[in-house]
Amino acid sequence: MKKINIGVLGVGYVGLPLTISLGKYFKTIGFDLNKERIKQLNQGIDTNNDFTKKQFKLSKKAFFTYEKKYLKKVNVYIITVPTPVTKTKKPDLTLLNKAIEIVAKYLSDNDTIIIESTVYPGYCETEIPKILKNLKKNFTLNKNFFIGYSPERINPGDKTHTINNITKIISGSNSSTVNLLKKIYGKINKNKLFKAKSIKVAEAAKVIENAQRDINIAFVNELSYLFNKMNIPVNDVIKAASTKWNFLKFYPGFVGGHCVAVDPYYLSFISNHFGFEPKFLLRARKINDYFYKHVFKLISKKLKKNSKILVMGVTFKENCPDVRNSQIPKLVELLKRKYLVHVYDPIANVAKNYSIKEKKIKKYDAIILCVKHNKFKLFGIDTLNKKLIKDGIIFDIKNMLGNYKNVIKL
Amino acid sequence: MKKINIGVLGVGYVGLPLTISLGKYFKTIGFDLNKERIKQLNQGIDTNNDFTKKQFKLSKKAFFTYEKKYLKKVNVYIITVPTPVTKTKKPDLTLLNKAIEIVAKYLSDNDTIIIESTVYPGYCETEIPKILKNLKKNFTLNKNFFIGYSPERINPGDKTHTINNITKIISGSNSSTVNLLKKIYGKINKNKLFKAKSIKVAEAAKVIENAQRDINIAFVNELSYLFNKMNIPVNDVIKAASTKWNFLKFYPGFVGGHCVAVDPYYLSFISNHFGFEPKFLLRARKINDYFYKHVFKLISKKLKKNSKILVMGVTFKENCPDVRNSQIPKLVELLKRKYLVHVYDPIANVAKNYSIKEKKIKKYDAIILCVKHNKFKLFGIDTLNKKLIKDGIIFDIKNMLGNYKNVIKL
Repeated sequence: MKKINIGVLGVGYVGLPLTISLGKYFKTIGFDLNKERIKQLNQGIDTNNDFTKKQFKLSKKAFFTYEKKYLKKVNVYIITVPTPVTKTKKPDLTLLNKAIEIVAKYLSDNDTIIIESTVYPGYCETEIPKILKNLKKNFTLNKNFFIGYSPERINPGDKTHTINNITKIISGSNSSTVNLLKKIYGKINKNKLFKAKSIKVAEAAKVIENAQRDINIAFVNELSYLFNKMNIPVNDVIKAASTKWNFLKFYPGFVGGHCVAVDPYYLSFISNHFGFEPKFLLRARKINDYFYKHVFKLISKKLKKNSKILVMGVTFKENCPDVRNSQIPKLVELLKRKYLVHVYDPIANVAKNYSIKEKKIKKYDAIILCVKHNKFKLFGIDTLNKKLIKDGIIFDIKNMLGNYKNVIKL
Repeated sequence: MKKINIGVLGVGYVGLPLTISLGKYFKTIGFDLNKERIKQLNQGIDTNNDFTKKQFKLSKKAFFTYEKKYLKKVNVYIITVPTPVTKTKKPDLTLLNKAIEIVAKYLSDNDTIIIESTVYPGYCETEIPKILKNLKKNFTLNKNFFIGYSPERINPGDKTHTINNITKIISGSNSSTVNLLKKIYGKINKNKLFKAKSIKVAEAAKVIENAQRDINIAFVNELSYLFNKMNIPVNDVIKAASTKWNFLKFYPGFVGGHCVAVDPYYLSFISNHFGFEPKFLLRARKINDYFYKHVFKLISKKLKKNSKILVMGVTFKENCPDVRNSQIPKLVELLKRKYLVHVYDPIANVAKNYSIKEKKIKKYDAIILCVKHNKFKLFGIDTLNKKLIKDGIIFDIKNMLGNYKNVIKL
C-alpha cells in the first residue's frame, strides 16, 4: 500500500496517547471538533494530566487540528470517540456515527477505518458498512474500503499500563487489514499484539473485560450491604479472604467512568436483540448503581439534619480529573437535601451544572472520603480532625485511614 | 495449658491431610464413624489418592479410629466434617452438630473446639454454645470451654497448594485461644498464619472465597449462553480478553463440589435471616446450576434420537475422584432419556445409585469430554476418533482439543 497517513478522530483519554505515540513514526493528525481542546494540545497542554510539554515535542510527525480539510490525505482513519449510553442505558453511538460521516467525506478507495471505541459485538462489520453505503453509493467492505478493530485499553490515571507497553488486540475485515494493523500498532508497543480470530471476537473481548470488573465489584458491594446489616466489617473480611492464593482483591465502592459502568449495557443491548436477557450482568449494574444510596443511608443514620459535610473527591476514579459518570455528584445531590455540603477535589475537571468549592468553613460535622487520590493519601487522621468539630465523624468509604474512634467504614 | 492432645473429627479431604500433618508434632487421633475408611487409613490406603503409604508412616504420632473412647484424652477437638446443603438448599449442619454432640460427651473444663468446616457467619459463637449448654449443664463459652475457627483451604486434586504451605486463617473466642491455634497450625505451615479480627470475620472470609469463584464462573457461563446464540466462540473471546493485564481467566463449565456450589447458600441463608436477600449471589447459583441443561441442548441440536454417546469424566472436578455434587450425573440422566449413554471415568469413586461403565461398544456417535482429567489430556484427537463412527462428533466442553471439523466447543 501507499505511505501510511493516519488520522485519529477524537483526542481525549484514548486518542491523545495514540496520536502522540503514532506521531513518532507516522504522519498523524489528531482531529477533534472541540476547538478549545485542540488549541490547548497545540500548546502542549493536556488538561487530563497524562502528558507533559516535552512528550508532545517528541511526537514530531503529529499535529492537532479541528479543520476537516486536513483529513483529505489520510488513508487510515482511527476513531477513538466516546461511546456512552443514553439516559435509558442504550448504546449511544451518535459520536461514532458522526465520525464515520466525517470520514465518509474523505474516504478514498482502499482506505481503512480502524475503530478503537467500544461497540457491541457485530457493530463494525454490519452497521458501519450500512452507514457508508448510504453516504457513498456502492462503497463496499473489503472491495472499496476495509475495517479494523483494535479496542482501546487506556486506563486513565495509570502510569504503568500505557499504550507503549500493553498488549493490544488487533482484528480486521480481511487478512491484509490485520497486517496493516500489525504494522501500525506493533510499531508503538514492540509488537505486543494479539490477533483475535475475528472482529466480532475482538469487539466481544472489549465489552467483557469491563463487565467482568463490574460484576466483581458488584459482588463486594452486595457483600458490603449484607455485612453492614450483620455488623461485620466488610474490609476485614476481604483482607482475611485475600490471604488465599486465588482470592481476587476487589473492594466495595462507586463504579463509574466511561467503561466499567457503560460496557455492560452494550453487551446487554445486543443480547436482547438475540433474544437473551443477561440477567446476571444487569443485576451487577443495579447493585453498583445503588451504591451511592447505600452510602447516603449510612451517613443519614449518624448525622443530624443541617450538619455541615465536606465531601472529599468527586471524580469517577482516583488520580483522574474525569467527573463524567461519577456517582459522587449523585451522592452530593442527595446529601444536599438534608445537609450543608461542600465538595473538595483538587484534581477534578469541573463538569457543567456542578460546582466544586473549597469553602473556608472552619469546622465540619463530618468528612466523607470518597476517592483515593494520592493527594488525599497524604492527609493523616490529625489533618482531617483539624477540619472537624469535636466529636466530628469521618466516613472512610475507601478504607484509607486506620481504625479510629470517629472513623466509620463500610 | 497441659500437653496438647488433638482429636480430628472427620477424616475426609480436609481431616486426613490435617491429621497426617499434625501427627508429626502432636498426639493426634483421626476419628471417623465410617469404619471402612478407618480400616483403609490404618493400612495406609487413601482412596482420595492424596497420600501414599510412605506419607502415612511419617506421621508417627497419629492414629485412626472409629472408637469414641479414644477421644477421652483429647483436649483440642478439631471438627472437619462436611457441611453440605439440604435438598431445599439450606445449610445442612447435621454432621457438624452430631460431631459436637460426640465432643460434648468427652469435653472437659478448659478444652477447645476448633471448627474447620464451612459455617455461616455467626454460627460458631452463637449456635455451638447453645448446643453445648443443652448437653452439658452450665458449660459456658470462654469459662468452661473455648472455640477456635480456622476455615479449611483444601483444594482437592491440587498438589501445589497443600496444608503445609498455604496461609491459614485463625481466630478464636478469646486471645488465648487464638494463641493456641497459632501454636497448633503454625507448626505445620511454618507460621503462615493470618489472625482474623474475629471468628465472624473468619467465617465470612471462608464463604465469600467460594462465592466469588461461583460468581466469576457464572459470568462466563452467562457469556457462554449468550455468545452461543450470537455464534461467537466464547473461548476465543476469553483468550483475547485474557491478554489484558487485569482480566481474570475463568472458563465456562460445570460448577460442583462441596464448596463452590454450596458456600453461597450458607451466606444467603444467614442473609435472609438478617432481612437481606443476596440476589446477585443467588442469580450466580441459578446460572451455574443451569449449565448441564445448556450442554444438553447443544448436544440435542446435533444428534439423532438413540445415538450412542460416551461421556468422559463424571467427577465434580479434574483429577479428583469425588462425584458428590457433580453436575455430570444430572447431564447423563437427561441424555439417557434420548440416547444410549455410557460413562467412562477411570478416577471417579462410584457414588451409589450411579454406575460408571466402560462398555465394550466399538464405535460411538458422539463423545462428550466433560472433565479435564490429566489422563484425558493424553488422548489426542486421533485416539478419540477411533472410538467414533465416521462423521462422529466430539463435544469438547472443557476446550481440551484443538480446532477440528468434528469438534464442537462452547
